[in-house]
Amino acid sequence: MKLTILGCYSATPRTFTNPTSQVLEIKNRLFLIDCGEGTQVELRRNKIRFSKIEHIFISHLHGDHFYGLIGLISTFKLLKRDKPLTIHGPKGIKEIITLQLKLSDSWTDYPLYFKELTATESVVIFEDEKVKVSTIPLQHRIYCNGFLFEEKLADRTLLIDKVEEYGIDRAYYRGIKKGKDVILEDGTVVPNEKITMDPPAPKSYAFCSDTRYDETKIELINGVTALYHESTFLESHKHLSYPTGHSTATEAALIAKKANVGYLILGHYSTRYDSIEKFREEALKIFERVGIAEDGKFFNF
Amino acid sequence: MKLTILGCYSATPRTFTNPTSQVLEIKNRLFLIDCGEGTQVELRRNKIRFSKIEHIFISHLHGDHFYGLIGLISTFKLLKRDKPLTIHGPKGIKEIITLQLKLSDSWTDYPLYFKELTATESVVIFEDEKVKVSTIPLQHRIYCNGFLFEEKLADRTLLIDKVEEYGIDRAYYRGIKKGKDVILEDGTVVPNEKITMDPPAPKSYAFCSDTRYDETKIELINGVTALYHESTFLESHKHLSYPTGHSTATEAALIAKKANVGYLILGHYSTRYDSIEKFREEALKIFERVGIAEDGKFFNF
Repeated sequence: MKLTILGCYSATPRTFTNPTSQVLEIKNRLFLIDCGEGTQVELRRNKIRFSKIEHIFISHLHGDHFYGLIGLISTFKLLKRDKPLTIHGPKGIKEIITLQLKLSDSWTDYPLYFKELTATESVVIFEDEKVKVSTIPLQHRIYCNGFLFEEKLADRTLLIDKVEEYGIDRAYYRGIKKGKDVILEDGTVVPNEKITMDPPAPKSYAFCSDTRYDETKIELINGVTALYHESTFLESHKHLSYPTGHSTATEAALIAKKANVGYLILGHYSTRYDSIEKFREEALKIFERVGIAEDGKFFNF
Repeated sequence: MKLTILGCYSATPRTFTNPTSQVLEIKNRLFLIDCGEGTQVELRRNKIRFSKIEHIFISHLHGDHFYGLIGLISTFKLLKRDKPLTIHGPKGIKEIITLQLKLSDSWTDYPLYFKELTATESVVIFEDEKVKVSTIPLQHRIYCNGFLFEEKLADRTLLIDKVEEYGIDRAYYRGIKKGKDVILEDGTVVPNEKITMDPPAPKSYAFCSDTRYDETKIELINGVTALYHESTFLESHKHLSYPTGHSTATEAALIAKKANVGYLILGHYSTRYDSIEKFREEALKIFERVGIAEDGKFFNF
């Protein structure tokens, strides 16, 4: 998986910082997560091919997470896109977008689908043969979902030396990868575990922005490879975190620790702080594997 | 008057170019004209004080002219604005903005007014003691207005040497500036023209984007100090200008010439051209006083 941070600051776009948006690449699929104002420019700056994006996931309807969506949808039209695009987001997103397309008399020429979310428990919202995406209900000031991206378990890995040693024909390979045993011409059974090994463990990524400190999501994100968890504040402003529906770096690290995640990525910083390094320093006191999001930075995991 | 170009390209924001937005300063009033995506960042970059903007004029509901408006309105709230803000724009703009404020549960704390435009002839939409703003109906693919900003005639200029020579008391100055004669204690009448001179000629600015070549607006903008006229295309793409509701640089220059304007500023360039200098070169063949808009450039007139 490759995660590219297009923007990771809260509230408003500024001269050198962008509101939330990120691109997750999994097995040659590109998913856009949130789309603050300016996202289309950041996609260009990071040389991400617009046409490869087929699904956009919007966490909630605060402006710093979706004001760039209508512009991106319009630009896709101007670029003569023909591939379908699906927007997954809170109920209301369809009305916001279609009202603007209607009033500008600029309907898209490509198929544009909306899958509006209303569930308050986790639901699967996308699934194909390699990837599954589910919502992570978050506690914010308005209806808000994080997203859990999970690779599916791949086929078993063929031990090519072993299958050749047994003289097994290539015609059986597909079945062997699915876990089948092989019966040789002399009747000998070759058990699958002798000619394959376990596939790589599937990876997973959990995006959690914006949210209060909330332990109910721990079970859902338990053991993910990487967790992006918002840390709008430092502990010095802890009194603001609950009422505004946000978290401190310490709270993000506590969730990472209790959910036993592989790696924690912090973001959604308030612009009141002079250095984002302080977020990492604070989180490291609780949890040891901490990265900090920065606009234009990417993470491979 | 000082005109600051925040963005002057058509269609989409790109890494180094912005869609339409400009700030006009007249007699210490700041007017924002159009508001493409990214406008709030360009306001910051150009160090324009957000709080001084009290009126925003939106020409039409194509995205490159207003997708930055909802973000700017939201940012004003986050900056704890308390001054009223008035949006002048086509019918529909209020629904677009209020729907998004409603769904994000983020009503502004400052008074937000909408003056929706539907007239197809020129109407006065703002007026105070120093400035008048009227619409300029434009011919585009959807309902679209340009805007004519006119300084009002100032008071007459007092000839201070002369009034002192006549021994006129300061209490009369206000009346004299308004054009009144003065009767001295001995009954002598001092005619106003002996103690004042004409005020400076009022300046005016016409913003015309987006529009087909259209001579019906010439009467309205006749003799303006400066005209911003869109020139999306060069003559090499003249076949595109009418059907898309746009103009070429030659067509813009023809309007400037026929309206006898002081100065023509070109903008709203298609991004298909490698150099915007070509627009000036083309227009100069028709009209001699031509400037080209560029993001971050300002014009004093």
